Formats: sequence, C-alpha cells, structure tokens
Amino acid sequence: MRRRRLKDGVERLLAHRDWLVEAPEQLSGQWDKLTGGKRIHLEIGMGKGQFITTLAEENPDVFYLGLEIKEEVLLRGVEKAIEKELDNVRFLWKNAEHLDQYFAKEEVERIYLNFSDPWPKSRTAKRRLTHQRFLNKYRKILVKEGEIHVKTDNEKLFEFSLNALSDEGYRLKNITFDYHNSGLSVPATTEYEDKFSRSGLRIYRLEAIKRD
Amino acid sequence: MRRRRLKDGVERLLAHRDWLVEAPEQLSGQWDKLTGGKRIHLEIGMGKGQFITTLAEENPDVFYLGLEIKEEVLLRGVEKAIEKELDNVRFLWKNAEHLDQYFAKEEVERIYLNFSDPWPKSRTAKRRLTHQRFLNKYRKILVKEGEIHVKTDNEKLFEFSLNALSDEGYRLKNITFDYHNSGLSVPATTEYEDKFSRSGLRIYRLEAIKRD
Ligand SMILES: C[S@@+](CC[C@H](N)C(=O)[O-])C[C@H]1O[C@@H](n2cnc3c(N)ncnc32)[C@H](O)[C@@H]1O
Ligand SMILES: C[S@@+](CC[C@H](N)C(=O)[O-])C[C@H]1O[C@@H](n2cnc3c(N)ncnc32)[C@H](O)[C@@H]1O
Repeated sequence: MRRRRLKDGVERLLAHRDWLVEAPEQLSGQWDKLTGGKRIHLEIGMGKGQFITTLAEENPDVFYLGLEIKEEVLLRGVEKAIEKELDNVRFLWKNAEHLDQYFAKEEVERIYLNFSDPWPKSRTAKRRLTHQRFLNKYRKILVKEGEIHVKTDNEKLFEFSLNALSDEGYRLKNITFDYHNSGLSVPATTEYEDKFSRSGLRIYRLEAIKRD
Repeated sequence: MRRRRLKDGVERLLAHRDWLVEAPEQLSGQWDKLTGGKRIHLEIGMGKGQFITTLAEENPDVFYLGLEIKEEVLLRGVEKAIEKELDNVRFLWKNAEHLDQYFAKEEVERIYLNFSDPWPKSRTAKRRLTHQRFLNKYRKILVKEGEIHVKTDNEKLFEFSLNALSDEGYRLKNITFDYHNSGLSVPATTEYEDKFSRSGLRIYRLEAIKRD
C-alpha cells in the first residue's frame, strides 16, 4: 500500500515538473536566471502549501520557493500554485540538510519555518530546523539583515528556538506567545496553524534578524 | 491604621540606618568607598530580601545592593541581613526611577529583577521595570557585558521583557519557560518565587547581556 501510494505521488508530482526546481545546486549563485531578479523568500517544510501560495498571490514582487521532503504533501502545494496560476513560486523536493549547496552567499532574503517538527527528545535535537547546525547554513545564504520567521504551536520548540537564534547572534523581534491575539498582522496561515488554532491552541511566533 | 503601621515601619527601619544607603547620589562614581572595590550586584524591588541575603552569604566577593520602595518589606530584608551578620549588603529605600542619579557610568555588574510588578494595562506599561525607559537607565550604569537577570511568574510580563530587551540591543541567554524544571541552577529563590512554585505556577527566566 505504502509503496503504491508513494509511486503514485511521485508520478503525479513529476507530471508537474515545470513547477519543481530539480537541480537547485545548478542555480546556486545565479537564481536571478529563474527569478528575474526578484528577492527570494524560502519556506522550509512547506507542507501542503497554503501559506506560500497565499503569500505568492499577494506579493508578486517576491519570488517564493517552497522546500519539502515529502512528495505527497508537496504535490498538494504544487496543485494550489497551478490552480492560482502563480508565476512567482517554485518548489524544491529536497531535504533542508543540503540547503547550503542550493544557494550561494546572501541569495535569500527571508526564511519561513512554520510548525517545524519539534523532535522533542534531546537525542534528536540536531534535526530541529532551528538547531545551530541549520542556523549556520541559514546565515550563509541570507542577505544582510535577512530574516527568519518562526511559527509553532510547540512551546518547547519555541523556547529552544529563542535560545538557539539568540546564541547564534540573531536579533529577535516581535516575539509573541499568542500570535492570533497579539495585534500583529497575520498575512497568511498554514494548514497546521488553522487546525491548531481551531482546536484552541496558541501560536508562538518570532522574527530573527541576521546581524553581522 | 495604615498611617500608624507606616510610622512604625519607618521608625524601625531608621533604627537600622547603618544598613541603608540614605544618600546614594553622593556615592555616584565612588561606590568603591563603600564596597572596597567589590563588584556590585543590584536587586531592584527586592521585597523581603530572601534572595539577596542568600546570595550575599554565598558570594562574599560580591557587594549586594537591594533597592525597594516600600519600607515594611525592606525592613524584613534588613532584619535578615542583620541576622546573617552580612557585611557585603546594603539597602536603598528608594524608587528605581532615579537609579541613574545613584550610579555613574558602568558601576554595576549585574541587575536582578525578580517578580516585578506586571502593570498589565497598556496605559501603565511605562512603570514596568523592563520598560525601555528603565532599560536605558540600566544600560548606562551597567559595566560592559553587564547582565540583567529576570524572573517572573507572569507570562505577559515575560513576553514584554523579551521584546523590550531585544529591541534595546541586549543579547538574550538561558531563556526558560519553566526555570525550576530546566536544569539551570537555582542559587537562590525569592519569597514570591517560593509561594508561586508551591502553588504549581511555572517560573519564567532570562538573562540579558549588555552589548555595545
Ligand atoms: C509539521 S509539518 C508542517 C507543515 C506546514 N509548514 C504547515 O504548517 O502546515 C512539517 C513539515 O516539514 C517537512 N520537513 C521536516 N524536516 C524537513 C527537512 N529536513 N527538509 C524538508 N522538509 C522537512 C515535513 O515533511 C513536514 O511536511
Ligand atoms: C511583586 S513584589 C516582588 C518582591 C520580591 N522581588 C520577590 O520576588 O519576592 C515587587 C516589589 O517591587 C517593589 N517595587 C516596584 N516598583 C518599584 C520601584 N519603582 N522602585 C523600587 N521598588 C519597586 C515593590 O514595592 C515590591 O516590593
């Protein structure tokens, strides 16, 4: 069953391969060729794509890249982009581990991390997308004053992220423990965000700014 | 009744005036005369003094100053210091508003803010001891890399403090949403802290480091 579903997902995804950047390492240092010079906002672990396709629709001047490792959910994101006829979004069916091979120094203006897997056991802390290991990769590819925006329902991951970002020299801003009741604007929500806030959970959020 | 209690409190406090620094503005720039060159740790809103007298006992190399506006509680702190026969602690019966008149540039190594009044209404936000207004005074009197340590049970005040400190350029460290279960060391607790944690409340804590 699982193999069957997987095969279907992969096939359907590859039927839309125009929407994928299949060899991002070949664009490293020359993303302009694809974006036409637009600044790049990257969502890592974009899931089913509601967030990124909403933003892409509203901000035609920004080029959006969605990175996601699971083909079933990525496919749903691609389908949303097709339906909305977006020309400023592409998808990377990739693992965030290799991010620094896909982008050269200072090619990305903003990174979104929405409801990243919490990896609660300390044994697996290294897999958290706000682990120092990843923050170092982000720093390389972010422009000067580039930003990382983090949203999560998971308090422990939020606490971890505050410390990791601060320790790695990022400046924190607009920290909120209850985003949807904070007065801060909510330009787009994710699928997980909608589910969690419907069931009464609070959303934590922060912005981190790269400092030199 | 209130006037009577007040008068008693003031009289009893002044009976111990050796423990008070009554004219701190006269020591500005020359605290060494009092401390014998020891570095200064200042607790603002020290209440009944359990925290500061515990630390003073354990760290004879540091000179502790407790600032408190209410004479009834301050008196309890003085009594603890007398009982412990401490020679490295003094008290300021003062309002934190005028802190920058009591110390010259870079005279204080560390500031403790424990369970500060939350002033929840935005109309009174300016009175919060982590308001920008106070953070600017602290920055002046703190040494290079000087620290502010904040503990509170109040989530809203904690969220406010994270933002205010970060916005004012302090670097945050050891942020925890549950201090007593964090693995961080707890060298001393306050009266409020004991009461809150006995009733099952979590304690939030952070350290902020002055950056140039
Ligand atoms: C909990 S889901 C959240 C999805 C979406 N951001 C949302 O808020 O609805 C986390 C997603 O991150 C993806 N992911 C986790 N680690 C990843 C990695 N190292 N590289 C790429 N994607 C990753 C997972 O496959 C999953 O779809
Ligand atoms: C909630 S109590 C906490 C007392 C103690 N830190 C503890 O944790 O047990 C806050 C204390 O701060 C004092 N305080 C508040 N604002 C102050 C100010 N501007 N200057 C001096 N003391 C102040 C109050 O009088 C009160 O004793």
